[in-house]
Amino acid sequence: MRATDVIATKRDGGELSTEEIRWIVDGFTRGDIPDYQMAAWLMAVYLRGMSHRETVDLTQTMARSGEQLDLSPIIPYAVDKHSTGGVGDKVSLVVLPLVAAAGIPVAKMSGRGLGFSGGTLDKLESIPGYRVTLTDDEFMQQVREHGIVLAGQTKSLAPADGAIYALRDVTATVSSLPLIASSIMSKKLAAGANAIVLDVKVGIGAFMHDLDEARALAQIMVDIGTTAGRKMVALLSDMNQPLGATVGNAIEVREAIETLRGGGPTDLREHCLVVAGHMVRLGRQDISPNALPDAMAELTELLDSGRGFDKFRELVAAQGGDVRVVDDPARLPQAPITVSIPATQAGTIAQVNALLVAQAALELGAGRARKGDAVDPAVGVEVHIKVGDQVAADSTIFTVHAANDDTLARARALLDQALSISPQPQEALPMFYDTIYGE
Amino acid sequence: MRATDVIATKRDGGELSTEEIRWIVDGFTRGDIPDYQMAAWLMAVYLRGMSHRETVDLTQTMARSGEQLDLSPIIPYAVDKHSTGGVGDKVSLVVLPLVAAAGIPVAKMSGRGLGFSGGTLDKLESIPGYRVTLTDDEFMQQVREHGIVLAGQTKSLAPADGAIYALRDVTATVSSLPLIASSIMSKKLAAGANAIVLDVKVGIGAFMHDLDEARALAQIMVDIGTTAGRKMVALLSDMNQPLGATVGNAIEVREAIETLRGGGPTDLREHCLVVAGHMVRLGRQDISPNALPDAMAELTELLDSGRGFDKFRELVAAQGGDVRVVDDPARLPQAPITVSIPATQAGTIAQVNALLVAQAALELGAGRARKGDAVDPAVGVEVHIKVGDQVAADSTIFTVHAANDDTLARARALLDQALSISPQPQEALPMFYDTIYGE
Repeated sequence: MRATDVIATKRDGGELSTEEIRWIVDGFTRGDIPDYQMAAWLMAVYLRGMSHRETVDLTQTMARSGEQLDLSPIIPYAVDKHSTGGVGDKVSLVVLPLVAAAGIPVAKMSGRGLGFSGGTLDKLESIPGYRVTLTDDEFMQQVREHGIVLAGQTKSLAPADGAIYALRDVTATVSSLPLIASSIMSKKLAAGANAIVLDVKVGIGAFMHDLDEARALAQIMVDIGTTAGRKMVALLSDMNQPLGATVGNAIEVREAIETLRGGGPTDLREHCLVVAGHMVRLGRQDISPNALPDAMAELTELLDSGRGFDKFRELVAAQGGDVRVVDDPARLPQAPITVSIPATQAGTIAQVNALLVAQAALELGAGRARKGDAVDPAVGVEVHIKVGDQVAADSTIFTVHAANDDTLARARALLDQALSISPQPQEALPMFYDTIYGE
Repeated sequence: MRATDVIATKRDGGELSTEEIRWIVDGFTRGDIPDYQMAAWLMAVYLRGMSHRETVDLTQTMARSGEQLDLSPIIPYAVDKHSTGGVGDKVSLVVLPLVAAAGIPVAKMSGRGLGFSGGTLDKLESIPGYRVTLTDDEFMQQVREHGIVLAGQTKSLAPADGAIYALRDVTATVSSLPLIASSIMSKKLAAGANAIVLDVKVGIGAFMHDLDEARALAQIMVDIGTTAGRKMVALLSDMNQPLGATVGNAIEVREAIETLRGGGPTDLREHCLVVAGHMVRLGRQDISPNALPDAMAELTELLDSGRGFDKFRELVAAQGGDVRVVDDPARLPQAPITVSIPATQAGTIAQVNALLVAQAALELGAGRARKGDAVDPAVGVEVHIKVGDQVAADSTIFTVHAANDDTLARARALLDQALSISPQPQEALPMFYDTIYGE
């Protein structure tokens, strides 16, 4: 086989064989195919697309490119979740303890954030002492003892994806459906889940701005999973406005804790119950017609009784975090400057642009512009309103937590742009647009 | 400026600014832009194309990327030629001495062949002693003394083109009109010509199989040249059957010598007179209506009187070649095996597939499959017929000059495929399809 032939076939819009895809991906991961040939191939894939079969082959090749996590000795039927990334998305912090409290063990490897706000690991690190880096043994031991673990990647999972992603990042080939789908799913397959709930965000603050595109991405990922023998559910959820009421790190942990105590914003609570409900019914392999409402009713009880919170506290303690912070979130890192931003006029909220709110949080230091940048755990933006809410002229819209006046000023300018108030009534945004099942 | 932005603009079908093209090409040539980013950019250019303005900018950036030859102290108005590459194309060997004999000095830097048969340099090296590598001083001195020089590149002309071409070769991005046009024209502009005759081949044995595509390539190159202030002529010539009666190295030199002595195949003689005619009228800046026929009449006289041959002999002597070989071509390298292949039936020649004849010559060792391969000067294929010719059942069609029985057998199989004889009369192929002027 010759690399130029494989590149040329894709360049001309042809379909590559399973062998050709394996050959180029494995060759690149081993270092036999140079990065300039892979870069040309990736651009050809970007512009010509991939068939369903090619995308499945690419995903499976990447999933098998390194070690694969075998959870079966501890969790005979493992359930995982993945979000394509949203503004204010602290869903994992609520959902995983909740699902574990329902008796479904969860062993999740999470990532750090790039852009916007931090990732789940960054958020957890605002709890002093919380260890995101565990050894293989610690990881497995914790699932066995506590039924929950939430840490960074311990094994060399899907190294082909890591190598290809690094190249896509510098060759303008990131935003391609088959490449995004195979990147996400290769890691999920390698992480050993039997069932996966995907939370695919759509809207101005998400990677996918358009419902049809998001649906296409969700469908590809569901198809990849079912072809690989996994049970799949993909939720299409709104990301035009931030999820919940906070965008940052410590302030998102605080909101997650409130939610686990039965409080928190309505939209976040509802969102977490739906995601957790699917995970629980999948984990129990419950195919009865009422499986989802039954699971959600049970999980509501676990939230309101504080048993979800207890599981979160157990998780933090097991991974070395300071549980006094969990018991009293006022002990979380606090920014030196806190400023309330009021409405400029009375009316109805027509827009809270999630992308601009995220950029404000990034300016404040809550996210990272470049890999390896440090994240400030204390800063961020509280969002006190939702689209459709009525506000008076002096209602507080945002609370900004800033490290200094400079970043505060830049964030304020972005938040001014983000908000739009209308004299006309405005409909609230839906939370979910659709659910795609692959079971 | 960021490389990913420049790549993304082209990926999305946008037009790059002059500054963006200069930035990425100069950056790549200096080594600041890594080859994987250039590879992604080249694939985006391949699949999205380039506007006229972008192609001109790319060409001029590459032309200025290294040293530029200044012939003006010796040749106030320099004329050059370029062929896009054909099977049996020995036109330069005849045309350059002929034009020089007409008093128009020619200083041509030529290349080695890749694929099919050898390039002009390879052909000349079948004359023992002929030096294709000259110093700058030797090159200039020879033009001054003899009005003719035909050698390999002496200066670092258009190094950006060399670097980009090497990358295109291994990333399946060769066959793109703007990339081909800019590659050819950047070297011609850097080589200092004031006027350029392009011989664009079209047909099964050429890079361009289709007249419309060839016309598009010719038009782009003419436009690039005129925008850069050059006078341009592009001929669209047939390459469905080989040009002349030989495909190889020494046997092509022999045919060129026969032609320079007033003999040779009719099609080659006519082709050379047209190319040389344009060069002479451009060199004299003669815009009279009869400039071309007048120049061709004068050149016919120079062929038939042997003055073109004398100039060729002078060229070979000046560059250290053995002139006894020029006087007696039987002294050229001879292959150990010579086999005649007769027609299998009587009829009219319907096809002599130039591509298959070229592949036969390559099998015999007359060309190089890989850069750096050695070329066997003695081997090749004589082609005794043209499409439209009547043949008897025992007429000789090909004479194969082979180094051994192995390569002979492989070449014969290809030549069998190449030939098609019909019971019906067949029209001869045209020599030229069109001429595009940019003056």
